[in-house]
Amino acid sequence: MLRGNVPALLDLLHLERIDSNLYLGRSPEGREGRVYGGQVAAQATLAAQRTVDPGWPIHSLHAYFLRPGDPRRPILYLVERIRDGRSFATRRIVAHQAGRAVYSMDASFQVREQGLHHEAPMPEAHDPDRLPHQREVHAEMRRQYPEQAARWDWAPRPFDFRWASESWPEFADGPREPELTCWFRLTRPLAPSELAAFNDLPGSAVHTALLVYASDHTILDTALRPHADRIDWDGMQIASLDHAMWFHDEAPVDDWILYQQDAPSSAATRGLGRGSLYTRDGRLIASAIQESLMRQLSPPDP
Amino acid sequence: MLRGNVPALLDLLHLERIDSNLYLGRSPEGREGRVYGGQVAAQATLAAQRTVDPGWPIHSLHAYFLRPGDPRRPILYLVERIRDGRSFATRRIVAHQAGRAVYSMDASFQVREQGLHHEAPMPEAHDPDRLPHQREVHAEMRRQYPEQAARWDWAPRPFDFRWASESWPEFADGPREPELTCWFRLTRPLAPSELAAFNDLPGSAVHTALLVYASDHTILDTALRPHADRIDWDGMQIASLDHAMWFHDEAPVDDWILYQQDAPSSAATRGLGRGSLYTRDGRLIASAIQESLMRQLSPPDP
Repeated sequence: MLRGNVPALLDLLHLERIDSNLYLGRSPEGREGRVYGGQVAAQATLAAQRTVDPGWPIHSLHAYFLRPGDPRRPILYLVERIRDGRSFATRRIVAHQAGRAVYSMDASFQVREQGLHHEAPMPEAHDPDRLPHQREVHAEMRRQYPEQAARWDWAPRPFDFRWASESWPEFADGPREPELTCWFRLTRPLAPSELAAFNDLPGSAVHTALLVYASDHTILDTALRPHADRIDWDGMQIASLDHAMWFHDEAPVDDWILYQQDAPSSAATRGLGRGSLYTRDGRLIASAIQESLMRQLSPPDP
Repeated sequence: MLRGNVPALLDLLHLERIDSNLYLGRSPEGREGRVYGGQVAAQATLAAQRTVDPGWPIHSLHAYFLRPGDPRRPILYLVERIRDGRSFATRRIVAHQAGRAVYSMDASFQVREQGLHHEAPMPEAHDPDRLPHQREVHAEMRRQYPEQAARWDWAPRPFDFRWASESWPEFADGPREPELTCWFRLTRPLAPSELAAFNDLPGSAVHTALLVYASDHTILDTALRPHADRIDWDGMQIASLDHAMWFHDEAPVDDWILYQQDAPSSAATRGLGRGSLYTRDGRLIASAIQESLMRQLSPPDP
């Protein structure tokens, strides 16, 4: 996730339109390593939305991370109009860098419709406003685990995360359940002018793209938790392999979102994490799932 | 699912090779309506596997059902070689009929690797051999609900399903939890010669394709169960929208597989079903997820 504030995050979502099916996205200045997966997913979501009726929200996406993205190069999003039906529209988006595909995603959009309704109830969770601010949690982690903390990037992020369950497996002294629950929201509310700057895109589409952005931040950790005490963190190769989401309803991400995550499996160097995203008043707004590579290059002691 | 026996099912999986990236599949003789989604998913899985090292099993797939398939026409599977890496290979498969895409799928294959392991424990479930045979269940349903049963197709299928929880929402007299658990296996074991007939494909790849085939049969029902008493079945438009699977381990499908399903959401005319597939001895071998259209054309009474 971006080191920076809300305007820096919104900057990433303002794609340059090259042609009706072709959009250019950029990565944050000074970013090192590889591009954050949630950034590519959010940019691809908005590139696709720009080729669909703005009143038809996205209801699902399925993506593969093909190669590490290079943050120093622009990312070209090529949108293929797979199908335009009477109530559904399907798009394929391939993100290119240096002439090679780094990311592919299929997404489906639907005219707004009403229908039968049920939802899994929100799990019990502490009031986010009563949970310690991440600044305090970070300070405590650095005090308690100075060695591990030295390898961690503590820069401010555009999202405020509050941990409803114990967090980082990197700092755990034993195996943990493959479950992780956190709250997140933007560090400050979006101004109407910030949403209006997206022109033809409705504000709800920008909020959804921000939800996609945030959904990639913690889901991978869940499958690592049962192995916390066996992992050699310097010898672990970790990467998102895919990412899929389903959108059941809309909600602003400058108010608290509960992200309940579990990991039913880690096997054959891969972990599977699942997530449910709720508003503070208990509406299930989205489901997410991600498989990640968790390959131990130096095997642990037997 | 196919009306017929195991040989008829295996016939569907024997694709005709047109070229190295191009395969032709057929639907069962006499099939009416639209092609069963699991058939297209299984055929696409094998078309992709034929373009990958046979020793690299599939570990995930993400598919969209774009248009209803016509069972009277052949289905052309065009495989695009997206990426061939050192340990992962990615394929895109588009199924065409009458010059139009009816189905698209991305799939990823991986060299066999060992790594960290955990899995969600198998839920408690009755011994499948002590559950009533589906013949008896079907006979009872027809006796008890003759009116609804008249609209149901009771033809024998190549899979034997045993209901570990109460089954069909169509026959429920009130709302049910959005959960569904069943066992399934082929109605008889596969002969070694039947697997050998797939030539270069390992037997495990055929079993995986059969797992894909079966995984589409019941998952859609789960999201309908909470609304069982409010649905006008003649006025319901029901269709699979997408299908995704993750393969954690391999297992033969001529031995019992437990299919635990739940549905966290139905909203905006769509339901989301999730599934976990276990061997009889409790190994989690795969996870599945599917969104389906469940549009009530005639709204229920308020």
